[in-house]
Amino acid sequence: MSLIISIDAMGGDFGIAVTVPASLECLKSNPELKLILVGDSALLKQQLGESIPVYGERLTIHHASQCVEMHESPSKALKNKKDSSMRVAINLVHEGLADACVSAGNTGALMATARFVLKMIPGIGRPGIISTLPSIYGHTHVLDLGANVDCTAEHLFEFAVMGNELVKAVENIENPRIGLLNIGEEDVKGNEQVKKAAKLLENSTLNYIGFVEGNSLNAGNIKVDLIVCDGFVGNVALKSIEGAAKMIGTLLKESFSKNIFTKLAGFVAYPVLKLFKDRIDPRLYNGASFLGLKGLVIKSHGGADALAFKTAIQLAELEVKHNVIKKISEQVEISLAQRKSA
Amino acid sequence: MSLIISIDAMGGDFGIAVTVPASLECLKSNPELKLILVGDSALLKQQLGESIPVYGERLTIHHASQCVEMHESPSKALKNKKDSSMRVAINLVHEGLADACVSAGNTGALMATARFVLKMIPGIGRPGIISTLPSIYGHTHVLDLGANVDCTAEHLFEFAVMGNELVKAVENIENPRIGLLNIGEEDVKGNEQVKKAAKLLENSTLNYIGFVEGNSLNAGNIKVDLIVCDGFVGNVALKSIEGAAKMIGTLLKESFSKNIFTKLAGFVAYPVLKLFKDRIDPRLYNGASFLGLKGLVIKSHGGADALAFKTAIQLAELEVKHNVIKKISEQVEISLAQRKSA
Repeated sequence: MSLIISIDAMGGDFGIAVTVPASLECLKSNPELKLILVGDSALLKQQLGESIPVYGERLTIHHASQCVEMHESPSKALKNKKDSSMRVAINLVHEGLADACVSAGNTGALMATARFVLKMIPGIGRPGIISTLPSIYGHTHVLDLGANVDCTAEHLFEFAVMGNELVKAVENIENPRIGLLNIGEEDVKGNEQVKKAAKLLENSTLNYIGFVEGNSLNAGNIKVDLIVCDGFVGNVALKSIEGAAKMIGTLLKESFSKNIFTKLAGFVAYPVLKLFKDRIDPRLYNGASFLGLKGLVIKSHGGADALAFKTAIQLAELEVKHNVIKKISEQVEISLAQRKSA
Repeated sequence: MSLIISIDAMGGDFGIAVTVPASLECLKSNPELKLILVGDSALLKQQLGESIPVYGERLTIHHASQCVEMHESPSKALKNKKDSSMRVAINLVHEGLADACVSAGNTGALMATARFVLKMIPGIGRPGIISTLPSIYGHTHVLDLGANVDCTAEHLFEFAVMGNELVKAVENIENPRIGLLNIGEEDVKGNEQVKKAAKLLENSTLNYIGFVEGNSLNAGNIKVDLIVCDGFVGNVALKSIEGAAKMIGTLLKESFSKNIFTKLAGFVAYPVLKLFKDRIDPRLYNGASFLGLKGLVIKSHGGADALAFKTAIQLAELEVKHNVIKKISEQVEISLAQRKSA
């Protein structure tokens, strides 16, 4: 089986300074992996240096003359940047020359380009963005995280069908426990879309466990494998959690910096605090998958460092290995047939 | 000026075991305060014991024969529990015998009853629930937190007008910085309601600073005094933050419990961790105000302990002292006149 991933080497806040070392780390840790680094070939050759002969045909440079800016409008990028590293990296997936693409570039442009080049899986109304969050049970998969602001019940149902296949594949579990994000667990709670989506999920073959509240993302009373929501709510929840973690980190640091005694206590506690911090290190959760497209695209955080970008590439490896796109396409077809006949 | 607060003494998960000690603490710390404890008079007399003569006319028992259950449907409570401690406590506000009411009871029933008894301020489409969250800048006020699942731009604008008055009064600041919760800071981001609400806010006299993201609730790049959102999003954000804090607390505890060395480190760090924990203790942020009604109702968390319930009563004291309802009513009238003439 092939495992070829195209990298938008120029994307993200730091471009090749991050994408190149992360790529080399991934090549080192997985001998089956082949990478195609897309971007300015002169710059890439310079940055790669002696690594080029080391990895031989496992490491290819593919020249692209343009670069999508981080705040460029998706429509402009689509129209004017036909030779951008982002666009070319996605083209490689479309042409079957790569099995997945990873980019830390502008989310809107990446989604618009991916949708334009790769096209949607028939039967899916909208693509969704799925990622994972740490939880007291390990971690939780969540979608949608920002692609769609006004979702219908059908969209939410499709997110559940697609997310279910992804979670089954990458977690190697039979029946992921799926929750629908709501403002209460009782049937009467929530808006119309959520209530209708609940009915669709109840009547499906999915392992739907009911409504869950925001706390279930990190620390609910029971383990949930996949939480489904619209992109507005998902994005706000994700960023709220980021803010809470940042506040707690800031205040914790302040508490240990107060005076000589607290600093001493901090010195003693440092190894433990370090271990704790590593457990919820957001870099180990970097990488969001676009679902609903006919090819695999992984979005890395724009501000990712090499460790974080490596995590995103490794997520792509995992999804390629488990044939996620093929499984989703097949399941979407089955689900649509079931719903039509119901 | 009078400062009389009616307490739904039977409400919440623990009833009088919590409401009575919290009430006594408040009477002790504010000599101007008068409390009317509403509930089963025999039980209350027994629980209050020797405190009754201590506080004289500052502490009154008002008998109510019924109690609204924590999971009772709001419509049933409204219809069948006309002599509930909750209903009677709100009646006292309506009759002018109390300046505010505090309850830890069922949120839905409390809102429905408050709306039925007190009526809405003319010009306000929907009541909102406002509360505060800790932040790296001190704290942030947020509304709506769960009363309304499908808000129009006008509802969001009204929330901003009402929240602005409350924040001005209780924080003693001239022009609170108001942000609108969205999935990005750029104008093009968000759903239609949020974009329209932004236009209304831009054209108002409010100190509107633009869109803010979820992380601004606890730790944005700039201080925001008031964040406005619909109740679905607000509730999910709030509970997501609760979950994140719970996860971090759990993992932190686990890290310090691993072995004898980490336990020793935990022992040394304990006083610092305790100080840190106190700073974000959710009990010190307990109490959400219902805005848009012709009387003041404060909702305490159902699972509040005496310290948390005391915080909710003290929030009521603060809002009565600053005449929040009168200020909101006046400002709503002015805002409506301005919008009509615009």
